[in-house]
Amino acid sequence: MNYQQILQEISNEVSTFPNTGEVANYIPELAKVDPKKFGIHLTTVNNEHFAIGDSEDRFSIQSISKVFTVAMAFSLLGDQLWKRVGVEPSGNPFNSIVQLEYENGIPRNPFVNAGALVVVDVLLSELKDAERDLFAFVQSLTGVSDITYNPIVAQSEKETGYLNVAFVNMMKAKGNIENDADEILDFYYKQCSIEMNCRELACAFLHFGENGKAYDHAGFRLTKSQVKRINALMLSCGFYDESGHFAFKVGLAGKSGVGGGIAALYPEEFAVAVWSPKLNKKGNSVRGFNSLELLTTKTGASLF
Amino acid sequence: MNYQQILQEISNEVSTFPNTGEVANYIPELAKVDPKKFGIHLTTVNNEHFAIGDSEDRFSIQSISKVFTVAMAFSLLGDQLWKRVGVEPSGNPFNSIVQLEYENGIPRNPFVNAGALVVVDVLLSELKDAERDLFAFVQSLTGVSDITYNPIVAQSEKETGYLNVAFVNMMKAKGNIENDADEILDFYYKQCSIEMNCRELACAFLHFGENGKAYDHAGFRLTKSQVKRINALMLSCGFYDESGHFAFKVGLAGKSGVGGGIAALYPEEFAVAVWSPKLNKKGNSVRGFNSLELLTTKTGASLF
Amino acid sequence: MNYQQILQEISNEVSTFPNTGEVANYIPELAKVDPKKFGIHLTTVNNEHFAIGDSEDRFSIQSISKVFTVAMAFSLLGDQLWKRVGVEPSGNPFNSIVQLEYENGIPRNPFVNAGALVVVDVLLSELKDAERDLFAFVQSLTGVSDITYNPIVAQSEKETGYLNVAFVNMMKAKGNIENDADEILDFYYKQCSIEMNCRELACAFLHFGENGKAYDHAGFRLTKSQVKRINALMLSCGFYDESGHFAFKVGLAGKSGVGGGIAALYPEEFAVAVWSPKLNKKGNSVRGFNSLELLTTKTGASLF
Amino acid sequence: MNYQQILQEISNEVSTFPNTGEVANYIPELAKVDPKKFGIHLTTVNNEHFAIGDSEDRFSIQSISKVFTVAMAFSLLGDQLWKRVGVEPSGNPFNSIVQLEYENGIPRNPFVNAGALVVVDVLLSELKDAERDLFAFVQSLTGVSDITYNPIVAQSEKETGYLNVAFVNMMKAKGNIENDADEILDFYYKQCSIEMNCRELACAFLHFGENGKAYDHAGFRLTKSQVKRINALMLSCGFYDESGHFAFKVGLAGKSGVGGGIAALYPEEFAVAVWSPKLNKKGNSVRGFNSLELLTTKTGASLF
Repeated sequence: MNYQQILQEISNEVSTFPNTGEVANYIPELAKVDPKKFGIHLTTVNNEHFAIGDSEDRFSIQSISKVFTVAMAFSLLGDQLWKRVGVEPSGNPFNSIVQLEYENGIPRNPFVNAGALVVVDVLLSELKDAERDLFAFVQSLTGVSDITYNPIVAQSEKETGYLNVAFVNMMKAKGNIENDADEILDFYYKQCSIEMNCRELACAFLHFGENGKAYDHAGFRLTKSQVKRINALMLSCGFYDESGHFAFKVGLAGKSGVGGGIAALYPEEFAVAVWSPKLNKKGNSVRGFNSLELLTTKTGASLF
Repeated sequence: MNYQQILQEISNEVSTFPNTGEVANYIPELAKVDPKKFGIHLTTVNNEHFAIGDSEDRFSIQSISKVFTVAMAFSLLGDQLWKRVGVEPSGNPFNSIVQLEYENGIPRNPFVNAGALVVVDVLLSELKDAERDLFAFVQSLTGVSDITYNPIVAQSEKETGYLNVAFVNMMKAKGNIENDADEILDFYYKQCSIEMNCRELACAFLHFGENGKAYDHAGFRLTKSQVKRINALMLSCGFYDESGHFAFKVGLAGKSGVGGGIAALYPEEFAVAVWSPKLNKKGNSVRGFNSLELLTTKTGASLF
Repeated sequence: MNYQQILQEISNEVSTFPNTGEVANYIPELAKVDPKKFGIHLTTVNNEHFAIGDSEDRFSIQSISKVFTVAMAFSLLGDQLWKRVGVEPSGNPFNSIVQLEYENGIPRNPFVNAGALVVVDVLLSELKDAERDLFAFVQSLTGVSDITYNPIVAQSEKETGYLNVAFVNMMKAKGNIENDADEILDFYYKQCSIEMNCRELACAFLHFGENGKAYDHAGFRLTKSQVKRINALMLSCGFYDESGHFAFKVGLAGKSGVGGGIAALYPEEFAVAVWSPKLNKKGNSVRGFNSLELLTTKTGASLF
Repeated sequence: MNYQQILQEISNEVSTFPNTGEVANYIPELAKVDPKKFGIHLTTVNNEHFAIGDSEDRFSIQSISKVFTVAMAFSLLGDQLWKRVGVEPSGNPFNSIVQLEYENGIPRNPFVNAGALVVVDVLLSELKDAERDLFAFVQSLTGVSDITYNPIVAQSEKETGYLNVAFVNMMKAKGNIENDADEILDFYYKQCSIEMNCRELACAFLHFGENGKAYDHAGFRLTKSQVKRINALMLSCGFYDESGHFAFKVGLAGKSGVGGGIAALYPEEFAVAVWSPKLNKKGNSVRGFNSLELLTTKTGASLF
């Protein structure tokens, strides 16, 4: 498969579409990004690399980080984790509090905000230095040692993150949070403000598609079956209340972030990351979504 | 892969679990079925067949029929269909009316009852003799000519189906139903009361996994891409508000019915149907779900 | 109190406001009414009568009729009635089905559509000829013998009343409806399409405010306490999800209808009916609401 | 009216009912109260006083305090207040966050927790020393100078009040909170932990029923119309999602608190306070509710 040519075609086609959508503006720091940025990096299980555009620019990975933290928590607790957070799509936006009230403070899945906050709560309870371990885990997945978070973005998110305070406290009221709300939120905002580029994300996600291999990074071990289940979660729940559309139109396991990134994988074949900052109303990158739809159309790659 | 031995192991293991759950009792006719029935049929793309237990007994396929009707409607309308019914998981039980009220009478997906009723409305509008065409389609998929519906079950469902009357009328109030409510419901109950056995279901579903082949049955043509999208819908929405669990634990595209059947497929490899009448609280066959979880564990078959 | 002068002042003041809102248009027959119609009739416990404008024109009383039917059902069943329908405001529009699903098919109160349909179900179960008895009851309350319903409006409502079909069937599914859906709806549309004028409505409602008197009309007996409770229901629930506003700004027990009428009463003093067809978004007459707010401001009449 | 004899009868009758319900236990300090406590104090516009039982014991007035704070805020902002908080019953429990999410952070009324928190936000924005003013207002209403709050209860509520943190932050996310969350909550818990006895509460509430009098306490002026509207709010919304029942069975304006108190008034006649710590599932005092139902039955007092 001539992936380089396909990436070129995708880039050409996408550039002819109007650049619709809006850059995430609820976080002042994120609103400053150049809306014309666009990059893709695809890497295969044979260690081939293909890239186009701004694929070496680091950006705020935001919710894509939830894949890393849920992998760590699943490694630590095994299936006990699913007593604290579900594996079902929510049918609601990522920032809805309604189901928490009706469903005893158990978030539907680890990719809605409330679920990711429970995952952080698990990491803080189980690990001596959860922050160090998170960065060790990301370093092990990518082979890159200087990945870190942007403290200005983290601070900016903290200052405007009233809804997340509401989530943590609602869950604490229902008995599903153990640690101090402030500690959880501090960690959460660091995780969300991690900056990576398309290459680094693609390399990290490739590990979730190498099903035949042992999976052990920085001491966090996952079985083949567990890795497959994280993929299933991404497919069911990775794009908020647009997850069904992503499965329907793209057909890969993936995860989006409001920084405009999407990382996805085709098990046993490749992982890919796309970045374009303008988001649709569901909070997913417009051109990122379009690019991946073109990619699976052109390659025939699809889980189905 | 020695599928026959695997089916034998599954049957042995499942029989050691307590036979929990309840036979569907909201339809008097369905409540009469023997709760100890259990059968599996697996067929491969190489036309191999493996079976165990009561795999030749016909049972009421109920919601599994929604895969057939949505395939027909997708063939007829193409992507126009998705203006009338969504492709997102609902996050709610199959018989919830709440989202219809909030979301302008557009059901979340074609596998909740309301969505299946919209699909019937499409068939009645587009086809001269929708009933004849449905059975021709099923005959073409299975190669079996005597498949029909059970008129006693259909009548029984009609007499107790007040919720479905509510769905159709709610959608009619919102402008998303064209045909007469009674006609829609008559067709719907016939579709739900179709009786097939595990072999026939497995054969029918195999066609949704032969991605390389032309797909044309009884005049209903679907492209490779369309077939993949029906699989994506099954994965996202095929098990009501337990769809995430099925993706997580089984990892195949599939569809369940309250008659106790589940049909699923592993593209390019096999299709499988299981039957065990006792249902969990979400309306899915307990032993059917367990059997498919064992099947993918033992074979390594998984979309992910 | 010079009520005639006050009505004149109200009429003058209201006519200076822009005639905003929309005539009910979901029923074609109702949409034909002249939107400039405006009338008030006030009658006191001393049998004085004051009127202005089109107070002798009959109009479709619509939901105001729910006061009559709930009075009949309360007389028949006593407090047993409240096992079938609640006495709490709904917090939702009159045509919402959401609470029925969550609350086992028990409508919040008899003034939302679903609640009024349960009341009809009670009347049909308890009375040999409920239709005859309803008109005898209204005749006894008003002293007028030729009050009847408009069959064209009733038919028009029936043909477009899909939501009401949904309500009845949802409640039937939950076990809270005994009679045939069609019979209930036929009666309900007759009740809603009763035509009365402001004088007749004021006379009828005066009986709900004569707390010292025996209350027995056409064989339907209510105790003083029961009459007070019907007033409490009107105050809590009489104006859909605008009931709090009516209590807050007007401070009387009353009931509105989408025909543009409002009837209200100040116990031991007067009853009043207003008619102006244009409705606000909550389904209440704009000028009717304004007129009653002016009336209680000018007279000091208020329950509080 | 021989009120003393009526109170005696009520006390006798209530004592024959089983003392059902549960003392509020979500606040450890409140759980320590003696569940057998029972007192009533009734005072008339003619300055007569009637009392029975533990009517001189002070208890935690909890949500009854919301009447005082909304009166202050209404005095300060006039009708501008109702842009920040509604006047409609919620149809939901006092601690539900669902409507905040759907309705842009505008609480339904000032007596649900979220609404009371908005009222506090108004007081903190409008007043230099809101705490001092609140106690001056209560002192002026009661003529008692040593009324204060219980700091242990306030602290206890703060430590377990995660839901209230969620409410404030949800509203802050929606733009309906100006002040710091911690300041709002500190004030709110002081207000809720005010301790008063039945006599003091009855005296305070009597002022809301003297409709003919000028109303000015500690500089907070309310017009006759404003006082009536506070009564309307109490009737519509004073008992959480049991407000309709209270209007239906008791027929007075009133407000309950989870400390087991209820204060109510019959305008131009009397005000009454009852205390009995055991609550029903809706959070209202069982014997308090019963006592007031008996009181209006025996006296004929009712708004309707």
